[in-house]
Amino acid sequence: MSTPPPTRTRLVGLRRAFHRYPETAWTEFWTTARIVEELSAIGVDELLIGAEVLDSELRMGVPDETTLAAAHTRAADRGVDPALLEACAGGHTGCVGVLTRGEGPTVGLRVDIDALPQHESADADHAPAADGFASERAGMMHACGHDAHATIGIGVLERIADSDFQGTLKVFFQPAEEVIGGGRAMAAGEAMVDVDHLLALHVGLDYPTGTVVAGIDGFLAVAQYEVEFTGRPAHAGAHPEDGSHAIAAAATATHQLQAIARHADGATRVNVGRIDGGTATNIIPESCALEFEVRGETTALCDHMRERATAILEGAARSHGCGVEWRVMGEAPSATSDASLVDVVATAAEGASGVREVRRRGTIGGSEDATYLMQAVQGAGGDAAYVGIGTDHPGGHHTATFDVDEESLMIGVETITRSILALDARSTS
Amino acid sequence: MSTPPPTRTRLVGLRRAFHRYPETAWTEFWTTARIVEELSAIGVDELLIGAEVLDSELRMGVPDETTLAAAHTRAADRGVDPALLEACAGGHTGCVGVLTRGEGPTVGLRVDIDALPQHESADADHAPAADGFASERAGMMHACGHDAHATIGIGVLERIADSDFQGTLKVFFQPAEEVIGGGRAMAAGEAMVDVDHLLALHVGLDYPTGTVVAGIDGFLAVAQYEVEFTGRPAHAGAHPEDGSHAIAAAATATHQLQAIARHADGATRVNVGRIDGGTATNIIPESCALEFEVRGETTALCDHMRERATAILEGAARSHGCGVEWRVMGEAPSATSDASLVDVVATAAEGASGVREVRRRGTIGGSEDATYLMQAVQGAGGDAAYVGIGTDHPGGHHTATFDVDEESLMIGVETITRSILALDARSTS
Amino acid sequence: MSTPPPTRTRLVGLRRAFHRYPETAWTEFWTTARIVEELSAIGVDELLIGAEVLDSELRMGVPDETTLAAAHTRAADRGVDPALLEACAGGHTGCVGVLTRGEGPTVGLRVDIDALPQHESADADHAPAADGFASERAGMMHACGHDAHATIGIGVLERIADSDFQGTLKVFFQPAEEVIGGGRAMAAGEAMVDVDHLLALHVGLDYPTGTVVAGIDGFLAVAQYEVEFTGRPAHAGAHPEDGSHAIAAAATATHQLQAIARHADGATRVNVGRIDGGTATNIIPESCALEFEVRGETTALCDHMRERATAILEGAARSHGCGVEWRVMGEAPSATSDASLVDVVATAAEGASGVREVRRRGTIGGSEDATYLMQAVQGAGGDAAYVGIGTDHPGGHHTATFDVDEESLMIGVETITRSILALDARSTS
Amino acid sequence: MSTPPPTRTRLVGLRRAFHRYPETAWTEFWTTARIVEELSAIGVDELLIGAEVLDSELRMGVPDETTLAAAHTRAADRGVDPALLEACAGGHTGCVGVLTRGEGPTVGLRVDIDALPQHESADADHAPAADGFASERAGMMHACGHDAHATIGIGVLERIADSDFQGTLKVFFQPAEEVIGGGRAMAAGEAMVDVDHLLALHVGLDYPTGTVVAGIDGFLAVAQYEVEFTGRPAHAGAHPEDGSHAIAAAATATHQLQAIARHADGATRVNVGRIDGGTATNIIPESCALEFEVRGETTALCDHMRERATAILEGAARSHGCGVEWRVMGEAPSATSDASLVDVVATAAEGASGVREVRRRGTIGGSEDATYLMQAVQGAGGDAAYVGIGTDHPGGHHTATFDVDEESLMIGVETITRSILALDARSTS
Repeated sequence: MSTPPPTRTRLVGLRRAFHRYPETAWTEFWTTARIVEELSAIGVDELLIGAEVLDSELRMGVPDETTLAAAHTRAADRGVDPALLEACAGGHTGCVGVLTRGEGPTVGLRVDIDALPQHESADADHAPAADGFASERAGMMHACGHDAHATIGIGVLERIADSDFQGTLKVFFQPAEEVIGGGRAMAAGEAMVDVDHLLALHVGLDYPTGTVVAGIDGFLAVAQYEVEFTGRPAHAGAHPEDGSHAIAAAATATHQLQAIARHADGATRVNVGRIDGGTATNIIPESCALEFEVRGETTALCDHMRERATAILEGAARSHGCGVEWRVMGEAPSATSDASLVDVVATAAEGASGVREVRRRGTIGGSEDATYLMQAVQGAGGDAAYVGIGTDHPGGHHTATFDVDEESLMIGVETITRSILALDARSTS
Repeated sequence: MSTPPPTRTRLVGLRRAFHRYPETAWTEFWTTARIVEELSAIGVDELLIGAEVLDSELRMGVPDETTLAAAHTRAADRGVDPALLEACAGGHTGCVGVLTRGEGPTVGLRVDIDALPQHESADADHAPAADGFASERAGMMHACGHDAHATIGIGVLERIADSDFQGTLKVFFQPAEEVIGGGRAMAAGEAMVDVDHLLALHVGLDYPTGTVVAGIDGFLAVAQYEVEFTGRPAHAGAHPEDGSHAIAAAATATHQLQAIARHADGATRVNVGRIDGGTATNIIPESCALEFEVRGETTALCDHMRERATAILEGAARSHGCGVEWRVMGEAPSATSDASLVDVVATAAEGASGVREVRRRGTIGGSEDATYLMQAVQGAGGDAAYVGIGTDHPGGHHTATFDVDEESLMIGVETITRSILALDARSTS
Repeated sequence: MSTPPPTRTRLVGLRRAFHRYPETAWTEFWTTARIVEELSAIGVDELLIGAEVLDSELRMGVPDETTLAAAHTRAADRGVDPALLEACAGGHTGCVGVLTRGEGPTVGLRVDIDALPQHESADADHAPAADGFASERAGMMHACGHDAHATIGIGVLERIADSDFQGTLKVFFQPAEEVIGGGRAMAAGEAMVDVDHLLALHVGLDYPTGTVVAGIDGFLAVAQYEVEFTGRPAHAGAHPEDGSHAIAAAATATHQLQAIARHADGATRVNVGRIDGGTATNIIPESCALEFEVRGETTALCDHMRERATAILEGAARSHGCGVEWRVMGEAPSATSDASLVDVVATAAEGASGVREVRRRGTIGGSEDATYLMQAVQGAGGDAAYVGIGTDHPGGHHTATFDVDEESLMIGVETITRSILALDARSTS
Repeated sequence: MSTPPPTRTRLVGLRRAFHRYPETAWTEFWTTARIVEELSAIGVDELLIGAEVLDSELRMGVPDETTLAAAHTRAADRGVDPALLEACAGGHTGCVGVLTRGEGPTVGLRVDIDALPQHESADADHAPAADGFASERAGMMHACGHDAHATIGIGVLERIADSDFQGTLKVFFQPAEEVIGGGRAMAAGEAMVDVDHLLALHVGLDYPTGTVVAGIDGFLAVAQYEVEFTGRPAHAGAHPEDGSHAIAAAATATHQLQAIARHADGATRVNVGRIDGGTATNIIPESCALEFEVRGETTALCDHMRERATAILEGAARSHGCGVEWRVMGEAPSATSDASLVDVVATAAEGASGVREVRRRGTIGGSEDATYLMQAVQGAGGDAAYVGIGTDHPGGHHTATFDVDEESLMIGVETITRSILALDARSTS
């Protein structure tokens, strides 16, 4: 287990490159290309791209064709290789790098790569702004550390490639996690079939740099909805009575969604995260779009929230004489980390440099579609663990001042690498 | 008073050209150019363009620079003359055509030229769609007949140019009526100073083709607001308690604005016409924009609505721990048509071909910033009348199926022309 | 037409007696008894009481049996004659006094007699409080002048009884106007059948003492609803998710009712006037009652409001998983005063002492179930007018400081008496 | 430890007597009298009543004087001894029975005695209805088992009186738990000062008959608010614009209170449990009362909810031009059961007849002002435990069909008696 570390400097550079050019769900064309470039340089045994690693039909939250086409053009303008763009056409981003080294176990590592529609702080005390690697795309930002995840995935692959690892390693660079859209499709891809042990990871989660949590649990099951209220337009001055007010219907729904009763059986969540409706102040608005999500500590709790939510949508439409349609944009189940794998990671982390505290278990207050991949592996008899790599982050996840302490890049690479080598060693001993 | 009619066919063609290429408030670059082209062909004595006819500071509802720049580029791409674009730069659209023919009175005719952010019906029974002159700009539409107004303005000017008119005629092609944004600025322009009689007109208003209303009253005073609620973002799963929910604040305000109590002293209106907030379902939304308007049968009633509205905005922000800022985008007072001028128009209309019914008075259920121009002329000792030119319109004003019965174009031209000539004749008799 | 005036002092005393003991809809047992006592003293030819003057089935807003029984007991305790109580049993209050004097026309006068559930001001500058005749019943008040109406009805009957009137006079003392509950039932009573001319009256309406309005129009059609939302109770701490929150459903309905869009065709109104729900803070409320009303300048406008309202109730229930039931408590149509009768009243008023201004027409911003009686007479070929008797009132109608200028009592008596005598004189001339 | 059991029949009879006559917070006059009667019969060494066992100033949720006076009269009518009524005057209900038997430890047992404003089911399958001991007071019900608690308290006292117990036993019969109103006052009473070990108990909590939970934790800190919105009345038809709508303000507050964001740090609750406002549909409502509660798994979480709630109240008032005032009706902190005492109870329960399962720990989803007494004892160096006595209950707590399996009465008596004797034995061994 004495592999030379990849240059810290190189990883930092990679992470900053990703940070500078954030791409949201299913439009990670350049990001995928950049990862593929690195994997090729490292020399993987197999490289699967886009549609090869996804069950296309199971993708969720895929943008409309206009948006995809614009993103395609943007990526082409940025110089992304046409062949790769072709492989990713229609919103089939992401890739899998495979090292095949012997009869050892097949280990999977899943990292996510997409960014958020969040504007980034320009404050002097926000490091990316101060150090010149802030987002170049207005209104887009790596505000949840997926730039670090992609980097760690590459770093681990490089370290294992340089090691005496005797098994198979598959690093899944998953698109569209933020919309809970990619996990289900990737979990159903062919590359997942033979994975014995699956590791997934996340930086931050309010753990400081130096802390590693070997098994994160408490994933909230989630469902994200896209809603369209349809009213009837009218001139707001001349004939207000002729209109059916789509914005008012959406406002009513918003109020009631936010007020779904708490549940005594466990944590639930609800958030109306987007609203967009109407055209001008003198027109009774004909349509209003709403995007919201519900979550539950268990899938049953999430389902309870879903039932309440759809009744609310129907009632709000009825009250305002509007129509309403909705569809699920993304969803994910809950999942738990297996004790068998948590032991391995905890031991590995204890020996990793920079690690000051190892916790066996922790909980996450959010959702993750890594749970689809975890369930797939667990369902096939394997085990899975979701690893927390602490990082000091000045702002909260999903806010304009979120940032990653770059020390955690190396800690992540080393913890995961040592875990994989330990799994390999265990199987061969 | 026997002037030959301009070819009906030509007016229909002009109206359809305008209809095909709708431009919204302050971006009527091509429309202005097209009007200027016609006025030049007719041969006016003076042609004032853009900044020459507006008090720039008094414009309201001017779009931001990015939008203006994009519109500029779009117009240039469409071949609009660079010199004219220069004259209209920064959102100074519209023009005034002047005929100076003698010592007679100075008559003003005001027509508005802007379109709405309204998508147009593609149904087979919607004439513009069936006959191939529907809007070429998705989401934009002449859904209130300003295409007809501009056409009638040109037609009148042409007819007067060919007549023995002995006074001065100024036709004001006003931008940005739909946002109540252009009237105040044009009323304060130099060209208004010496107008003795002002005519304004509107097609439709639920009157059928063949009906002319000599004096429309009952303009609702109006104020349009742009509001921004500012909350605090947070991860909707991990830390919902850290957020201040800007969409919820806007929804609360929406509910309460729509519910401002009716007023026994007269008609009032309120409409939340636009909402746009948040970024993603998993982020507590940091900001939400709202656009709304209030109206009143009198300025006092409108002021009452404004007071209630601002209290509501403050309360909604307070309740949700959000900040709120607002500004008035557009406003207009009320106004009445002068009996002196109503008499002239009524008599003129009775002799116009195609007119089947003349009403002296009618009311409008909406607002109009023509009231600024009417007040300016009335304040300087002149008189003003707002003329309704009936037209069969299948769909309501400001809806996707609105259309103009093109018969009304000639009726409008003839009624107004005869009115102007009668004013001239009266002064010289 | 020289009848001696009834002592002003006596009328003031009567009005104060009524003021001191307000009784709300269908519980006017003592009030009816007091009126009957006066009519008997005056000596009428016929005296119809309670069920004799009402179509029992058409009454609206009748309180439940417990309330009626309590009111019955209260009246008995106050010494009301058991025989009269028997005649009024089950909420059949009100009476009609008839004078039959010859072959002249049958004139009807309708006055209402009920009070409001309004607490009365105890301020020193509120005359009833200062002069010791404020309401003795906490939370009940003659805050709309029906104490004056009953008094004027008695005064007119007395004056006509003393005159040489040659026709038939019927004074209808109508219960339950405030809940729009008595008019329909009384309009369908037998006593209405042969009325040729119907006068109704109201004091105040923002007209000062000395002003008489011969024909009030603009009655708003009205419908009053009683709603019950039924949810599912649950312990608010232990199982909030098990509840369906009836108060939340009622709050949603309240918001949306208050926000029904204005109508361009004329005035509309809506008011949620009562809410009562839930039992304790730690129980998810199982039920919540709501009382509201809608109005419209025409019956069509009122019907539009009713349609919107019921959709809102259904939608609110659906959204909150609650049941909802409603019933109409009271309703009234619109009506107009006939010019024929308005002429008579205007002339009569001009000669009445104390009258300083006579207006032919005025409008009321409220509703009145006198419209049922007006429509009944008009429908049978007669005519009707609703007369406004101005009175200086310090507080608004339906507020704690409303009061009547007692000068208007005599003005009312004289104006109506002179009108009746003029109708009689006209028919015999 | 071989005390003869009190007749099961007698305890069942007692419980049914309490059930038949439920009395809500601070009006438990008859209930207190009935308990005193039993304690006297058993023969206690000291009997403290009403004001003797409460810090009067610290009581919360005391009804107004009219309500108290009515309850006083009602109790007197029912034959409650005037001397006892005097001791309880002004809403000082409850009592403490003391046995002083030697030098052993002072053990406290706290049981609560008040009922809920909940109507009781009359269904044939609701045992109290079927067996003729349903509530005789309409709208009042023992729907949370306090009838059983009072009975168990008496049963335990009787058993200990008959035993060779060598310490001091104080049974605290606490009033006003349902409004979180009595615990604080009783905790500050003199009788609490020297308690070494405090036991409290609750039946049900979703545990079946035969299950005992030795230490219940997870009490939610709670605060209950009484709110009054004050608007401005106006006639809803004539001058709606003059009103400030207190019901609308309360509805806005209701919506927003129910929608306070969930907190990631732990469970929170909110419930608007009462609303009452307005007088009639034609009056813009001048006032509306609201009662609500917030809870939190910790006091900090509860405080967070309180902060949000008061901002909401202020904002809703501001939006609607209303005033608002509020006061805290009741509140309670959180608390935990001490392991030392939990051990004793668990062992005692294992030997009790009828017990089929003993759990060391459980959580409660609600609040309890027993926490005040627990904190008082713990703060003075003693220990405390809150014991769950399972009972099969057909309907949920606080619902119309709640009932207690009377088998649990004996289980409760025996478990607590054995625990007390064990504490005594331990101290003397």
